[in-house]
Parts: sequence; structure tokens; C-alpha cells
Amino acid sequence: MKVIGVVDTTFARFDMASAVIHELKQTGTGFKIERSTIPGVKDLPVASKILIEEKGCDIVIALGMPGAAEIDKVCAHEASTGLIQVQLLTNHHIIEVFVHEDEAKNDKELRWLADRRAREHAVNAYDLLFHPERLQKKAGTGQRQGFDDAGRIGE
Amino acid sequence: MKVIGVVDTTFARFDMASAVIHELKQTGTGFKIERSTIPGVKDLPVASKILIEEKGCDIVIALGMPGAAEIDKVCAHEASTGLIQVQLLTNHHIIEVFVHEDEAKNDKELRWLADRRAREHAVNAYDLLFHPERLQKKAGTGQRQGFDDAGRIGE
Amino acid sequence: MKVIGVVDTTFARFDMASAVIHELKQTGTGFKIERSTIPGVKDLPVASKILIEEKGCDIVIALGMPGAAEIDKVCAHEASTGLIQVQLLTNHHIIEVFVHEDEAKNDKELRWLADRRAREHAVNAYDLLFHPERLQKKAGTGQRQGFDDAGRIGE
Amino acid sequence: MKVIGVVDTTFARFDMASAVIHELKQTGTGFKIERSTIPGVKDLPVASKILIEEKGCDIVIALGMPGAAEIDKVCAHEASTGLIQVQLLTNHHIIEVFVHEDEAKNDKELRWLADRRAREHAVNAYDLLFHPERLQKKAGTGQRQGFDDAGRIGE
Amino acid sequence: MKVIGVVDTTFARFDMASAVIHELKQTGTGFKIERSTIPGVKDLPVASKILIEEKGCDIVIALGMPGAAEIDKVCAHEASTGLIQVQLLTNHHIIEVFVHEDEAKNDKELRWLADRRAREHAVNAYDLLFHPERLQKKAGTGQRQGFDDAGRIGE
Repeated sequence: MKVIGVVDTTFARFDMASAVIHELKQTGTGFKIERSTIPGVKDLPVASKILIEEKGCDIVIALGMPGAAEIDKVCAHEASTGLIQVQLLTNHHIIEVFVHEDEAKNDKELRWLADRRAREHAVNAYDLLFHPERLQKKAGTGQRQGFDDAGRIGE
Repeated sequence: MKVIGVVDTTFARFDMASAVIHELKQTGTGFKIERSTIPGVKDLPVASKILIEEKGCDIVIALGMPGAAEIDKVCAHEASTGLIQVQLLTNHHIIEVFVHEDEAKNDKELRWLADRRAREHAVNAYDLLFHPERLQKKAGTGQRQGFDDAGRIGE
Repeated sequence: MKVIGVVDTTFARFDMASAVIHELKQTGTGFKIERSTIPGVKDLPVASKILIEEKGCDIVIALGMPGAAEIDKVCAHEASTGLIQVQLLTNHHIIEVFVHEDEAKNDKELRWLADRRAREHAVNAYDLLFHPERLQKKAGTGQRQGFDDAGRIGE
Repeated sequence: MKVIGVVDTTFARFDMASAVIHELKQTGTGFKIERSTIPGVKDLPVASKILIEEKGCDIVIALGMPGAAEIDKVCAHEASTGLIQVQLLTNHHIIEVFVHEDEAKNDKELRWLADRRAREHAVNAYDLLFHPERLQKKAGTGQRQGFDDAGRIGE
Repeated sequence: MKVIGVVDTTFARFDMASAVIHELKQTGTGFKIERSTIPGVKDLPVASKILIEEKGCDIVIALGMPGAAEIDKVCAHEASTGLIQVQLLTNHHIIEVFVHEDEAKNDKELRWLADRRAREHAVNAYDLLFHPERLQKKAGTGQRQGFDDAGRIGE
């Protein structure tokens, strides 16, 4: 039985964790889920590390929704840097799922985007853990999470 | 008995530590407080690490009030990066509470903001330590510390 | 028998890994290849570390194709920083091969560039592993991967 | 007997180390000084680490005077990041004293600023080592080193 | 017998390593040189670490010539950050010698600058290793490598 960690924030304005968990359960079996919620994206790195080292997670999905201001971009950068460090300290993957508030043109699209990106990355995490060959088949094909795939160059 | 570290700076222009300590005592029991004061935000990372490793703190609240100049933004970024590193080195949470001098429109609002944000993050730290389920209930609900909560998208 | 790791992304819009593997096989012998594919460039650092530490790779070629937006530049920077950290943690070289979508003036050139840069860096990785003296002969000669070499100053 | 490290650069255009040492001797006793000089601010992190780990320093004062160009700002940022890392690796404080060449309106003010900031931070280092309670008394009071203190908000 | 590492890139457009080695031999004795060449500046950190840890170098001179584009500035920053990390991991100095292509007004000056800076930093490395007191005598005197020294403020 594998363990998938799901960590999110009270700062985010959409419940991406529920979308992730719903999608994971539709995608396959053989895992259980460990949940954790912290205030903001800068708390994600240590929360992810604790999920891996103290809760036995084999992979973590780290969910965040940074605001649109410059300071929020800096926070997201600091969080991302920390999430990479955790991966290097643990040799475990963390799938970072960030949706920036200014990525969508209105609230409806933002909700759709947060839900869609969370679900597509849930499948990525599942595949990394159980079916890495599925990712390899899509190597270099311009996959995107949320908005339309970019596809191969010129296609 | 848990230990909550509170570290602040002589650079800050408001006594956020007193607000934090007052709020913590109103919020619950079962902890004692370790205090530390250093010159500026760049001194927060090692001070926080010492509180965790040498003073036995289970969590640290790190308080800073960066100035409005570009150089102050860089200092805050360096401090934040260091605070995340400490968390990864210790597997302990540090709640960073920074109030930027240019976040408020006048002195009165700045004082209010520093007090309010310090208090709301004191509760976050308390909940992380004693009631993590309270944070999970607020996952994805757009919580903010200081100014009004952003709420769920479209609400 | 040496082991060369090749890691790429599903985000990239060109199959640089195939170009790398093709070029490596044309360049020499004495090695086998370990493949890995992950979603995006921020997943490259830990994937590279796993290739080195768990798959026995002597060197890794890390392939990515960041988009043209500002956020993509930040992701690439975070990935690069992580790739350098992995090298320092393992004392193994990782040859980073990034092609930014805005480096070429059209799709045709972008495909050409991705293929060309991947192949030239494949030779660099091979030389680092088997013939470091070949790199030393080219020290300070303005080599570029993809576009024309810059050459020595004033030549 | 405590040991205070003082490290400076040949790049700086003012002898801040002498100001620091003079001020330290006026401030108190119970310490000896270890000196080190390196070319530029990017050499400060390892020089500080060597002072702590190989020369037994209990605290280090790291002095630098970055130029006014953009590249100098980047160097200062890299140096600061490194100085924070050293602190986290050693659990010792390093008081960074940087004076940027563009902080003053003319040469006379720049000399005054470098001297003043060095001296005020010398006292901070001394207090951190011998009288941390003195810093705590000034928590949140808007202390500045060099130019006038900012004071509490609204005062 | 001390060992001085000299690492450079095939990307650079001037043979700074030869200038460094020539200058070192004119400056003194008691050392031998270990050479290494890698593709670009981002490969310098691990190459320097290998020189120190696997080739027994007591100090390393890391040579690079970043291009003038924004992406080159980012690469240089990543390389510098990595070089500082190596120093902290090894407690050995690395003298970074970067010449940016846009620092000079024409090719002739760029060649002159690369040669001059390499030579002056070769002496810095030699002094750090054999005569640190020579650096201390120049503390705070505004030394520059390549272009004219800035001198003490107001002189």
C-alpha cells in the first residue's frame, strides 16, 4: 500500500485537495491518502517534508493559490525553491500544483482552472508512483495541466 | 508542555511580539514561550534555528517589518528563504509574520495591520501545534491575516 | 560500463531525449542509458538525483523546454538552481539542456534548435565522461550549443 | 573569553574593520578579535565559516561595500544568501554590515555612514554575545544603523 | 606542496586559464595546478567541488565569461550561488572570475579585461593561500580586478 500526501493551504480560494482526492480515487487503487493543511504556500515545504518523513508518504501533491500581487509571486518562488529542496533531501517527488489568481480572466474560469489542474496533476502523481511508463509515452508532447495542451511544436 | 518561540527585531516599528504573546495566552494553554530579539529580518533564520535546537521550541513565530525600499524587499526575500531552510533542517514549522511598511495607507492602519496580523498568525501557530484539524476545516477558504479574508472564489 | 541518465518532460514540445540518445549512440560506446520522464522542469532535479543515486548514473542529461512567459522563466531558474544542488550533493555532472520557446523566430527554427542543442550537449556529456581532454582543447573558444559558436573574441 | 570575528574586503572603499574594532573595545571586555580579509563580498560566506569553525569565533561581523551597479546588487544578494546559510550550518550569528555606494549623497556622507553603521552593528554584535536583554528592550522600536532610527510607527 | 585548481569553460571567448596559470607561475612557487574544463558557467560549481574533494585542491579559480543577454545574467547568478555553496560545503575558497561580455566597449577592451582580471585574481588566490596578510593590508582600499582600482572614498 502506497501513501500519497496531499497538503493545501487556508490561503487558497478553492478546495483543490478535494478535487485531487476525488480524481485519485477515480484513477486507481493501491494507495491511501495523508492530508495536511497549513496557512500559506511558504508553509508547504516543511509540511511536505513531514508528510514524507514522519507520515511515510511516497509522493506529495502540494497545492497552492498565490495571489496576483508582486509579493505573492515572490512567496510562490520561495515556496517552489523550498519544495525542490525537500525533494532533494528525501529523494521523493513532490508535485507542485500552483494556480495563480491572475491566470484566469474571471472567477468562473479560475474555479475551473483550479479544479482541472488539480485533477490532471493528481493523475501525474499517480502515474509517477504506479505507471511511470505512461509519462514516458507523453515525453516531449507539450502536456499542460488545466488549459489546453500545447502539443508538439508545429502541430 | 509545548514551547512556542517568538523572535522579533529591533528594526520593526511595532511591538508585534507583545501582540503575539497576548493573543497566545487568550487562545489556550499547555505551552510556554521563549523570547528572542535580534537586529533585523536577516538575523531571524539563525535565531529561529537556535530557538528550536537549543531552546526546545516546538514551533516559532518569526516577526519582521521590512521597509518600503527595494533593498528591504531583497532582505525580506533572503530572510524568508532562510526561514524555509531552517524548517527543512529541523522539521519544525516557523510561522513567518512580515508586515511591509508600504502595505498600509497611513501610520494608523500600519499599526492596526501589524497588531492584527500578528494576532491571527499567533492563532495559526497555536492551531498547528494543538489543533491542526481547525486549519484543515478552513482549507481553500481564502483566509488572510490582517486585512479581510479573500474568501472562496466568487463568494 | 558507464551509465548515462536522460530525463525529460511531458511539458516539452519536442522529443529531445530521442535526439540525445541517437547522438550518443553515434558518438561512442561503453555506456548504457537510463531513461526517466517527469511532468515539468521543476521535477528534473529530484528525477536526476534518483537517476544518479538509485539507478547508478555517472552523468545525467536533463532536458527541458520552458515556455515564453515570465512564470516559465522563474520555473526554469528554480529548476536550474535545483540541478546545481543535485550536482553538489552527488559530485556528478548534470548537463542541463534547456530550450526556451522564445529563443527561435518560428516553429521550424525551434524544432531545429531543440534537436541541435540536444545533440551538441549529448557530445559534451559523452566527452565529460570519456574524453575530458577534448573539452579542455576547446577552453575559451566560444562554443555554443544550437546556434553558431561565438568563437574567440574578435575572430 | 569569547572570540569575535571581523572579516572585510579589499573591494570596500572604507576601513570599516578598524571602526568595528575601535567600537568593540570601547563597548566592553571579555573578548578577543580574529581578523580576516578577502577580495570581495562573495568571499565573505566561506571566510566567515572558517572564522567560526576553524578560528573558534562565537560571532562574526561581516563587512562589505557593494558598488552601485546592478551587478553589484546581485553580488550583495548572493553574499547575503551565503551568510545566512553559514549561520544555519553553524548555529552562530553573523552580523552583516553592508554599505551600498549609492546610499549616500556624496563621499563625505558615505564615509560617515560606513563608519557609523559599522560602529552601531559592532554594538549589536557585542550585545548579542554578552547582553541579549539589551536588544530585547529595543524590540519593535525602529532601530536603524547609520542613518537616524525610524522609531515606533507614528512617533 | 599546495594545489591550485583552475576550471574554465568552452563557452568563454578568451583563454583566461592560460593567463591565470602564467600569472601564478610569475607570482610564486610551492604549488601545482589542477586543470578542468567544462561547457558553461553552470557546470563550474560541481567541477570546482570535484577539484577540491577528489583532486585535493586547496583553492580553486573558477573562470567564466557570461554573455550579455538577460538569460546569461541569470545563468551567472545561478553559477555564483552554486560556487558559494561549494565553498560552504568544503570550507575552501573559490575565487570566481567572471567577465561579462557587456562590460567592455569593444573586443579589444574585452580581451584586455579578461586577461587583466584573470591575472589580478590569480594573485588574490595566491595571496589567500600563501600570504593572507597581504590582503589584510589592502582592506578597505577599493581594489578592483581589471579596470582601475576605485581607491578609498574621496581619494
